[in-house]
Amino acid sequence: MVHPFEPIGPGEISLAADILREALGGVSLRFKVIDVQEPVKERVIPYIEAERTGGPLPPAPPRLAYSYLHRLDTHAFVKAVVNLDSRTVVSLGELPKHVQGPVDVDEMIGLEAACLQHPSVVDEIAKLRLPEGVTMCADPWVYGTDDEAERRRLVQFYMFVVSADHPQTNHYSLPCAFSPVMDASTRELVRIDRLPTGGGHGAAAETQPWKPVKPVEYAHDLLGTPLRDDVRPLIVQQPEGPSFSLAGRLVSWQRWRFRVGFNSREGLVLYNVTFGGRNVFYRLALSEMTVPYGDPRRPFHRKQAFDVGDIGLGITCNQLRLGCDCLGHIAYLDGFRADSAGRPVRLHNVVCLHEQDAGILHKHTNYRNSEATVVRSRQLVVQMICTVSNYEYIFAWVLDQAGGVEFEVRATGVLSTMPTDDAQGLRLPWATPVGPGVSAPHHQHIFNLRVDPAIDGFNNTVVYEDSVPLVPEEHGVEDPFGVGFVTRTTVLDRAGFADTDVELGRVFKIRNDGVVNAVSRRPVAYKVQTVASQRMLASPRSFNARRARFHEHAVWVTRHQDGELYAAGEFTNQSRDSAGVDAWAARGDDVENQDVVFWHTFALTHIPRPEDFPVMPVERLSVHFKPVGFHEKNPALDVPSSRQAVNKSTLVEAEAEAVSCCEEEAASKL
Amino acid sequence: MVHPFEPIGPGEISLAADILREALGGVSLRFKVIDVQEPVKERVIPYIEAERTGGPLPPAPPRLAYSYLHRLDTHAFVKAVVNLDSRTVVSLGELPKHVQGPVDVDEMIGLEAACLQHPSVVDEIAKLRLPEGVTMCADPWVYGTDDEAERRRLVQFYMFVVSADHPQTNHYSLPCAFSPVMDASTRELVRIDRLPTGGGHGAAAETQPWKPVKPVEYAHDLLGTPLRDDVRPLIVQQPEGPSFSLAGRLVSWQRWRFRVGFNSREGLVLYNVTFGGRNVFYRLALSEMTVPYGDPRRPFHRKQAFDVGDIGLGITCNQLRLGCDCLGHIAYLDGFRADSAGRPVRLHNVVCLHEQDAGILHKHTNYRNSEATVVRSRQLVVQMICTVSNYEYIFAWVLDQAGGVEFEVRATGVLSTMPTDDAQGLRLPWATPVGPGVSAPHHQHIFNLRVDPAIDGFNNTVVYEDSVPLVPEEHGVEDPFGVGFVTRTTVLDRAGFADTDVELGRVFKIRNDGVVNAVSRRPVAYKVQTVASQRMLASPRSFNARRARFHEHAVWVTRHQDGELYAAGEFTNQSRDSAGVDAWAARGDDVENQDVVFWHTFALTHIPRPEDFPVMPVERLSVHFKPVGFHEKNPALDVPSSRQAVNKSTLVEAEAEAVSCCEEEAASKL
Repeated sequence: MVHPFEPIGPGEISLAADILREALGGVSLRFKVIDVQEPVKERVIPYIEAERTGGPLPPAPPRLAYSYLHRLDTHAFVKAVVNLDSRTVVSLGELPKHVQGPVDVDEMIGLEAACLQHPSVVDEIAKLRLPEGVTMCADPWVYGTDDEAERRRLVQFYMFVVSADHPQTNHYSLPCAFSPVMDASTRELVRIDRLPTGGGHGAAAETQPWKPVKPVEYAHDLLGTPLRDDVRPLIVQQPEGPSFSLAGRLVSWQRWRFRVGFNSREGLVLYNVTFGGRNVFYRLALSEMTVPYGDPRRPFHRKQAFDVGDIGLGITCNQLRLGCDCLGHIAYLDGFRADSAGRPVRLHNVVCLHEQDAGILHKHTNYRNSEATVVRSRQLVVQMICTVSNYEYIFAWVLDQAGGVEFEVRATGVLSTMPTDDAQGLRLPWATPVGPGVSAPHHQHIFNLRVDPAIDGFNNTVVYEDSVPLVPEEHGVEDPFGVGFVTRTTVLDRAGFADTDVELGRVFKIRNDGVVNAVSRRPVAYKVQTVASQRMLASPRSFNARRARFHEHAVWVTRHQDGELYAAGEFTNQSRDSAGVDAWAARGDDVENQDVVFWHTFALTHIPRPEDFPVMPVERLSVHFKPVGFHEKNPALDVPSSRQAVNKSTLVEAEAEAVSCCEEEAASKL
Repeated sequence: MVHPFEPIGPGEISLAADILREALGGVSLRFKVIDVQEPVKERVIPYIEAERTGGPLPPAPPRLAYSYLHRLDTHAFVKAVVNLDSRTVVSLGELPKHVQGPVDVDEMIGLEAACLQHPSVVDEIAKLRLPEGVTMCADPWVYGTDDEAERRRLVQFYMFVVSADHPQTNHYSLPCAFSPVMDASTRELVRIDRLPTGGGHGAAAETQPWKPVKPVEYAHDLLGTPLRDDVRPLIVQQPEGPSFSLAGRLVSWQRWRFRVGFNSREGLVLYNVTFGGRNVFYRLALSEMTVPYGDPRRPFHRKQAFDVGDIGLGITCNQLRLGCDCLGHIAYLDGFRADSAGRPVRLHNVVCLHEQDAGILHKHTNYRNSEATVVRSRQLVVQMICTVSNYEYIFAWVLDQAGGVEFEVRATGVLSTMPTDDAQGLRLPWATPVGPGVSAPHHQHIFNLRVDPAIDGFNNTVVYEDSVPLVPEEHGVEDPFGVGFVTRTTVLDRAGFADTDVELGRVFKIRNDGVVNAVSRRPVAYKVQTVASQRMLASPRSFNARRARFHEHAVWVTRHQDGELYAAGEFTNQSRDSAGVDAWAARGDDVENQDVVFWHTFALTHIPRPEDFPVMPVERLSVHFKPVGFHEKNPALDVPSSRQAVNKSTLVEAEAEAVSCCEEEAASKL
């Protein structure tokens, strides 16, 4: 029996493809996605509750898969759901003409080749008169939207010079000023856009022969300068093995238990997260992210990727290598995706698990006698790294010993660039020059984290608490010295949204009103340390904003409904409006003490620095979840003390600077 | 010759005491502080610039020390400055009657003994009829202020039952309802306050016999439950030694060079921080912090510690132990303080230095061929840990390889508590119950970090940049799609203040207008990622707010003047108004391209959780400094790649869950 949270397996991919080929009677098909169709929550809960409490397991919910596919006869875009247990089709239907599915791996590779081979593009490239050994590449970009009527599946290519025959040469340093647009379905060239390279909207002149420019490289053997020789090895060892155990996808570590899910769209998902045998979360995943760019000029206004919905974090996951992406004692998990022929592709090592030391977890010294209790913080990191063309995102769930969970995002990789005419020292107000003839435009990374909570049960309430001065009339007590302060709680009883508020010290909590903590005399809860961040800067009338209305509020609350997983809706590629959390929240469902879903939008406004090029030192954002009156006291009191006998820490002997004699003498007496 | 940034040595302490004893003609003296008087910046700059550029060293500035002391004949509080080179008194004067110096170590110990031995206190304790083996302790608290006229040096004692003869029993779990107030100078008992224990201002009834209550303990051998046995050792080794070198207090690491200062008041100070031979900071230190409590009831309204100014981070520093407070390969530095007799006291291992791995620093994968460059982030941590009665603060400067500096604060330790009558399930709106009969009041931790910058030189300008939609009229370009966004810079040309603004994505920068980056075509700069936080909740009319006006704004900018080091002023103990950065900023000096000082106020509103008791999992805050156009590209490109051959990472072999046969078969083909 397959566990309800098990990712799709290779046999399941093949089986689903077979079922669909048969159902469609031999029509040629092109598969975009074959993945698990998330089981109905109502059917899963009895199963995982039986697991948690050790009761007899009920039957697992039926094993379903969904697929996005194209009929090659009609070019129709189809969504299908199949039952893998009964080998039957559950549903199968053509989607409306304006709906575009995500980009898939084979499509991306095929499109680049089609672009570079298209006679008109070949002609255009010829005008560059590239020297021997210098070539071109084409980064296909999802098209964004600027037209209500457009129905074609369009892709825009940004063109770059590849100046060296080296697998890591930085073509992003050498952007070209022409940009083909193709129909991804028919592979027809729609037009070649000429990019603006000056301060206004004027397009670049006719393509001229390329003037060789030295690219800004990141690959070590292209730097032309020696590497540092003063970074001494730092080795992390766990001679007795890790503190976690891994049974298939089930992880047990320091009172935590959870299942590591994986799918093409979201990549890493955590399911059924419990602590000390108590439910905490049903499901945790990044539901969407969008990256709108701030360049007002056509066609750059269309640069707005939805890296989850347009492409998929699962299919962009890096296959990690020991000693490169994590440090210490590391376990890896694989995933599977379908290729366009419906065959399974194994994705090796796409998720890694390892422990890390995170400094002191808690310490107290009794100052009267200098006796101290010091406990170090051990953390478990569950990580994936996604390459979305130029950018890299490192997503990690970090669990700690005191009941805390952190979702960490690190942004790295290469800035998206454009050619800029810098002859007259031009500096565009919406971009940063990062090299000769190349600029990186302002942009924002706007993330949405979907949290399906289960704080001591599956019915929860979302509230926020503000810290405010005591109001004597309200609390029945005077505040003669003007120092009193209290918390003011607002219950989100109807589906909707809320915003962060730094000035009020606003804290969001997810609580279970049915379980009261004996010490705090309040319902058990987790707080969410939200990231207070800037909203999308694009105008509400822009497609950028309309397509990603999840950016409008930091917190959204909805009543759980199966299938409502993605903040900007199911289909984001060339979408015109969002059909996601904003719509679901607008139902205004009763969400007090209900099966509630908490969505957190957070963002990074990225004004590029020269230091972010050619590859960017990580920029970090973290959302923290911490128990608040979930326990009666610090749940990590039983973590053993940090001891040299165990951790083998060693002393660096310093080279003392010459100290004057009188100092030496005085010091030696102490 | 003593380096200008060398902390005070033991011989210097003795010498200063001798000079002062002689100058005061044999009067009995009680020393509170003897420490280095910071040398005049104008004299230091030529010296450190000669060091930096390798020129001939000019004479060091004269070596001065200052002292706070009491004449025991007149009880006058005196401040003196002496010249240690010439062995002469530079200045010596009595301070006004209302000025109270900080608490010193000997005073703190002496006061507790005086309180516990005072006949009236002994009588009060007797009423508790404590069982055999159960004793009392008294935490002396700086008094705060509630009276313009009060001139005595007062101290308030919070009394606790010590229920076990164990060096780490948690007396904070057993607070008593009476609170003696003494004159710290005369050791007279002023009165015994009775604490309110109910919902209003009414004081507790006459002291009753103590009803034994089981305290909530943190010490492992008092827990009564076994420790976790599933935390496997995690060992960090640097077999080739650390990447840093330490020559006295001079640290060199990964292009960084700086001096580690130490003094009684601020503890850890970094001086003369350079990167790649370029100036970055002249001086970095936490200048002040205040912890106002939110309980409106007398005498709790006076709970407002200034942990830097009232006590001193240097004298509260933990003496760190190998394998306990840091992990890996660690160097320690000592400090010295004076005791009340003017003798030096060596503070062993008060500062530690070690390297840590911080995950990936940058990565890019060429998706066309899966070739990746991955560089891990090595950091240098310079840390001190301060115990201020119940609380612990872990302060660390964290330097990275890409020119970044982080100031990290971790708050841990034991919550300040008070007795609460919880018979009727009372829950005070300004406190959290944390155990039987004990609550922890709301409070705020408000920090001020003083940054004396030297971005490529000592004359700098502070600006802030907001990210805002493009305004066509202003930028001379249309924004037809409503997506353009730009930065708007505000120069702080006059001393004053500014606030964070999340909605505008506000970034503060410190730049050198005289040095232009060739790539960005903008002045070289560092940005400060400020912590957006809630202001003090106390009313502006309250003494809490008046004494700490630095809380009013997130950023203050002043023109450098020697001696202006502390955000709430030099003397905070029982201060009535602040005399610090707010006053200096009010001068409105020209600070554009001048010797400017940047002060950042940030805060944590702490609504205690039961999980924060009896010892609190760390709560972290970080201020980041990052180069912005200080370099022409990522300065860490030359950090070698992460390689298993060097870092010896190892693979955890997973116990595979049973996979069905068809899955196995399908998978084996991939």
